[in-house]
Amino acid sequence: MIVVLKKTADEAAIRRVVQHVERLGLKAHVIVGTQRTVVAAIGEKRGDERETLSSLPEVEQVVPILAPYKIASRETRPEPTVVRVRELVVGGGHVGVIAGPCSVESEEQIVEVARAVKAAGARGLRGGAFKPRTSPYSFQGLKEEGLRLLALAREETGLAVVTEVMTPHQVELVARYADVLQIGARNMQNYNLLQAVGESGMAVLLKRGPAATMDEFLLAAEYILDQGNTNVILCERGIRTFETHTRFTLPLATVPYLRERTHLPIIVDPSHGTGIASLVPPMCRAAIAVGSDGLIVEVHPDPSRALSDAAQTIDPETFAETMEACRRIAETLGLTMDEALPVSS
Amino acid sequence: MIVVLKKTADEAAIRRVVQHVERLGLKAHVIVGTQRTVVAAIGEKRGDERETLSSLPEVEQVVPILAPYKIASRETRPEPTVVRVRELVVGGGHVGVIAGPCSVESEEQIVEVARAVKAAGARGLRGGAFKPRTSPYSFQGLKEEGLRLLALAREETGLAVVTEVMTPHQVELVARYADVLQIGARNMQNYNLLQAVGESGMAVLLKRGPAATMDEFLLAAEYILDQGNTNVILCERGIRTFETHTRFTLPLATVPYLRERTHLPIIVDPSHGTGIASLVPPMCRAAIAVGSDGLIVEVHPDPSRALSDAAQTIDPETFAETMEACRRIAETLGLTMDEALPVSS
Amino acid sequence: MIVVLKKTADEAAIRRVVQHVERLGLKAHVIVGTQRTVVAAIGEKRGDERETLSSLPEVEQVVPILAPYKIASRETRPEPTVVRVRELVVGGGHVGVIAGPCSVESEEQIVEVARAVKAAGARGLRGGAFKPRTSPYSFQGLKEEGLRLLALAREETGLAVVTEVMTPHQVELVARYADVLQIGARNMQNYNLLQAVGESGMAVLLKRGPAATMDEFLLAAEYILDQGNTNVILCERGIRTFETHTRFTLPLATVPYLRERTHLPIIVDPSHGTGIASLVPPMCRAAIAVGSDGLIVEVHPDPSRALSDAAQTIDPETFAETMEACRRIAETLGLTMDEALPVSS
Amino acid sequence: MIVVLKKTADEAAIRRVVQHVERLGLKAHVIVGTQRTVVAAIGEKRGDERETLSSLPEVEQVVPILAPYKIASRETRPEPTVVRVRELVVGGGHVGVIAGPCSVESEEQIVEVARAVKAAGARGLRGGAFKPRTSPYSFQGLKEEGLRLLALAREETGLAVVTEVMTPHQVELVARYADVLQIGARNMQNYNLLQAVGESGMAVLLKRGPAATMDEFLLAAEYILDQGNTNVILCERGIRTFETHTRFTLPLATVPYLRERTHLPIIVDPSHGTGIASLVPPMCRAAIAVGSDGLIVEVHPDPSRALSDAAQTIDPETFAETMEACRRIAETLGLTMDEALPVSS
Repeated sequence: MIVVLKKTADEAAIRRVVQHVERLGLKAHVIVGTQRTVVAAIGEKRGDERETLSSLPEVEQVVPILAPYKIASRETRPEPTVVRVRELVVGGGHVGVIAGPCSVESEEQIVEVARAVKAAGARGLRGGAFKPRTSPYSFQGLKEEGLRLLALAREETGLAVVTEVMTPHQVELVARYADVLQIGARNMQNYNLLQAVGESGMAVLLKRGPAATMDEFLLAAEYILDQGNTNVILCERGIRTFETHTRFTLPLATVPYLRERTHLPIIVDPSHGTGIASLVPPMCRAAIAVGSDGLIVEVHPDPSRALSDAAQTIDPETFAETMEACRRIAETLGLTMDEALPVSS
Repeated sequence: MIVVLKKTADEAAIRRVVQHVERLGLKAHVIVGTQRTVVAAIGEKRGDERETLSSLPEVEQVVPILAPYKIASRETRPEPTVVRVRELVVGGGHVGVIAGPCSVESEEQIVEVARAVKAAGARGLRGGAFKPRTSPYSFQGLKEEGLRLLALAREETGLAVVTEVMTPHQVELVARYADVLQIGARNMQNYNLLQAVGESGMAVLLKRGPAATMDEFLLAAEYILDQGNTNVILCERGIRTFETHTRFTLPLATVPYLRERTHLPIIVDPSHGTGIASLVPPMCRAAIAVGSDGLIVEVHPDPSRALSDAAQTIDPETFAETMEACRRIAETLGLTMDEALPVSS
Repeated sequence: MIVVLKKTADEAAIRRVVQHVERLGLKAHVIVGTQRTVVAAIGEKRGDERETLSSLPEVEQVVPILAPYKIASRETRPEPTVVRVRELVVGGGHVGVIAGPCSVESEEQIVEVARAVKAAGARGLRGGAFKPRTSPYSFQGLKEEGLRLLALAREETGLAVVTEVMTPHQVELVARYADVLQIGARNMQNYNLLQAVGESGMAVLLKRGPAATMDEFLLAAEYILDQGNTNVILCERGIRTFETHTRFTLPLATVPYLRERTHLPIIVDPSHGTGIASLVPPMCRAAIAVGSDGLIVEVHPDPSRALSDAAQTIDPETFAETMEACRRIAETLGLTMDEALPVSS
Repeated sequence: MIVVLKKTADEAAIRRVVQHVERLGLKAHVIVGTQRTVVAAIGEKRGDERETLSSLPEVEQVVPILAPYKIASRETRPEPTVVRVRELVVGGGHVGVIAGPCSVESEEQIVEVARAVKAAGARGLRGGAFKPRTSPYSFQGLKEEGLRLLALAREETGLAVVTEVMTPHQVELVARYADVLQIGARNMQNYNLLQAVGESGMAVLLKRGPAATMDEFLLAAEYILDQGNTNVILCERGIRTFETHTRFTLPLATVPYLRERTHLPIIVDPSHGTGIASLVPPMCRAAIAVGSDGLIVEVHPDPSRALSDAAQTIDPETFAETMEACRRIAETLGLTMDEALPVSS
């Protein structure tokens, strides 16, 4: 931590800051520059020391040197974490694809889409049973019945089930049916929930909050990891910016940026990231080209009849073509994607 | 809802859209312009119709006409809602002030600060017992012990206790000690939590999420209101923008904008909204001048020893001066603020 | 400047960085922490050294310590700069108000509004002659004829004329008619234009660009100051964020934040900052309460017939009431605002 | 244009709005909904009518239906515009690459880099002679000498020279040396400059401003097109958001989104878009995969000695590898990229 003193700081002020640094159990090292004195605080604990020092009257700013996350860091574990659930493999050079409808609507719908996305190369099935909806007047999901239908689709196809859990007390119920617990973007900083899925030991798909910085995103993962659960997949799904022509702004640079800092696999959600069906295929391709460890895509047999997220949902044919294009790109980069399977009608 | 068709839409396409609109139970009204045909869908239900229509291939965009919230709207209830809890009164021309430390740290700390802020004119006491912290390595609050100390400070001062609740299952516990349940910015779209505080019937302080639009904010309130609980105070606490010189960007135009649309009272949090202690007093004054129904301010007897949010916390003297300035401004606008009380040491 | 080395940096890497720092004419000071080595580079020149050092393979990040602007800094000149043009006084405890239509439209219009705003207490007259418009199909201003009409309105009222200049070659022409040269938000980083208005020696109103940071804003001012011209008024007029319910987001914390860093006066533009006429009066009041040195407000005799910015323009009566409210607030803060004058029809 | 009236609007109010619409030369069509009356204004002129109508007291909001740009629209010209300058071809299925240093520094530097980037497959040479720099204390470019060196490098390599022009009066000078006039992001809304490059008839590379919406971007192009010059290349170079771990946020969805709306070619600048050299290669690949018509990339023989933009500049080897990877991806999509040429030392 570097503590920059105000220009007006005199000898006494420097002494006060040094004492404060030492009171925090850190070693202080004073550097007198031509215009400013800075105090390097060595032995940082990554807690609230920064805030405390910032509040001193003689301090202009405090600059942290160490990343605030530990277990998520590549410095802790240089080799990539690979998350494996059933046939779904995400990370370490393997691109895993999760696809399915926004919401589970009926047995027919979920089984049909599960078959179609598996045929196109997906190995995970997404589908919301508990739906966090902006409006209390929107369809809120089939709840436990939705979970049951997802499990049924899994029996039919072998796909790993990925579905959202919204409260700590739901974890047990959802874990009974799902293979991967999804933490939605709105809940990225719902710390009790993060701890609960951490404790569950199950694989977790953690979506980036639409206003979360990289540090906040990795610290959210840290809450899960800190429970001893390292089966965490990070998911970039778009951020909120001044752009309104797309639902969110999808910043693909997140993928290589995080790659340099964490061993956790990183996937991309071009459906929420754009909110527009016609932009989903090109952004899927770009996500693969940038080095993503996977995709999560909204697919529905008839998007215009979908009960939620209709505008950003693609149909199974478009999905299959997109997967084909992605597979060709992955190949040029030496990455592996699962094959399309002959459709068993 | 106005459905704008693509330029290429022919007679058949228009017919398909009209049928789709009617299938949704709405009345369709076709308007042929010089360059575009639009279909007005009358009788809107404010659910997912917009998404569904957006996904049709012949549709370019769908423009909603009605606000998506109902109970929160001024159209439903033109007169202002006034929230009253003990001596704290927020709304309807009365400016209510809530102040206190970020976290409850000890009996001595919370009682000292409660006395000081009451003396300066506050009628609510804030203080975190359950703390949502970005890092799992930061101080997480005293939990139930913190609640107990808040109740103790209330006994000493009569201030209404405002404190955060983080999960649906915590509601019962927190409600046993608190007067106002606070929903933090990170949980603004934690819908299960919103429903739980709605059911509790207690007064709720709902903070705007840092990336929430006005519609999302009011729809979050709607989740609470929809449970029959209208004791909701909205709180603007800053949004995430490209500005990093302040912790968040505090958009005071929120106050008059919401005033035109909702009957719920709106207060401002200049501590989180700026993140810098020296900016808190001028932004408190500005919040009063813009017409805010109240303030929530972080105050600590010795900010540099605060266990959290030290950099944005002011001391009791600064708070008292700020309240004095705010009271003078409120007076020029015909608003009422509670008096400073002679300090009973 | 603090150069943070990568965790992997060994002795040889540290030596290379030290040499690079010294090659830049700076003194290197090595600090070995528990997890990172940092090199303090003393004697910083505020040029491109930061970028250069960032590009070294052994460097993780470079943290600047000194502000990049010099002449604009309070450290260079602690007492506030007061800009005085005719009866308009901005800064040093005096709140100066500039008002008038978005565009000059006719002699009758500009003279009528000039009289009205003077009567309400304004001492500067705004009005666009050269208009930067987003669309080439929008009204582009009366050009030189507009300048002539502004000068005529000045003769009638004595108000200082504030009007925009768009290219370096226009400076001479505009300077012939105007008292204050306005640099619009879109041109905040038009450096040739900044130098040209700097050379002119005239008073300059510099609007913040909608995506400009504080450093960029002050460095834009520095381009003007560097020409020996210190008659610069800074203007916060709103930034672009995810908020679309207002035209821009108006962050009033800019005012006290800049106050701590620069001696230049800072005013606020609530018309562009909100884009909505009904929000202009409350945001004018808030701007005064936060400590602004002035306001610039769009006023038109009949807003619904204004040729540009109609939606954010207020009428003279609303302006007069707003000024009255602002004056009362200014008084409570010990600030001076010019009096409303009896209208001489 | 759809004019939504306030709920309180009565018969008389509706009549007033209809009259206002008709006064603007538009046809009014009244639709009475269950909760709101809306007036469709048919025959829109894409000027300031929206603002004017918004300002009426009985109007709640005005929703435009037509895009505000005309010549740039695909509706005006469905087939893609291909810009060809020397061997550089951008658009219509041909990916053209422009590369070179941020600033021209010396004959040796520019000729060396020109040879290297041509050998890797670039057909355009970028290099700044007039440099818009945030700080007046940074290197401002070699000016005309820089232009001369660019022309010399063109003689050596045949590459098309792409360089920035900063004022209308510079156009003539820069046009004497350059093949493509670049409008920098800071000048995207410098309308006099846009008109001047439009009049020049030369090819123009128009960079998106960091806070520009899609409509503003296309309207800036419209200023050039409106002068009869259709040789315009659009360039996405990143937007300003709350993300600070990258210099800007690079939203690649811009490419397919604009593709649906305009016939103009669209390229991507991953150097400015990320600001970090290690992120440039993956984002180049992603740009190709998303369907970009080209790239503009900062390349320097020794990035750590570059006089500007050092941190985001890659060396010729990295550039050659990146081009190779991009070429393989382009191939899978059926796009053409220029070949790498045997280096003629």
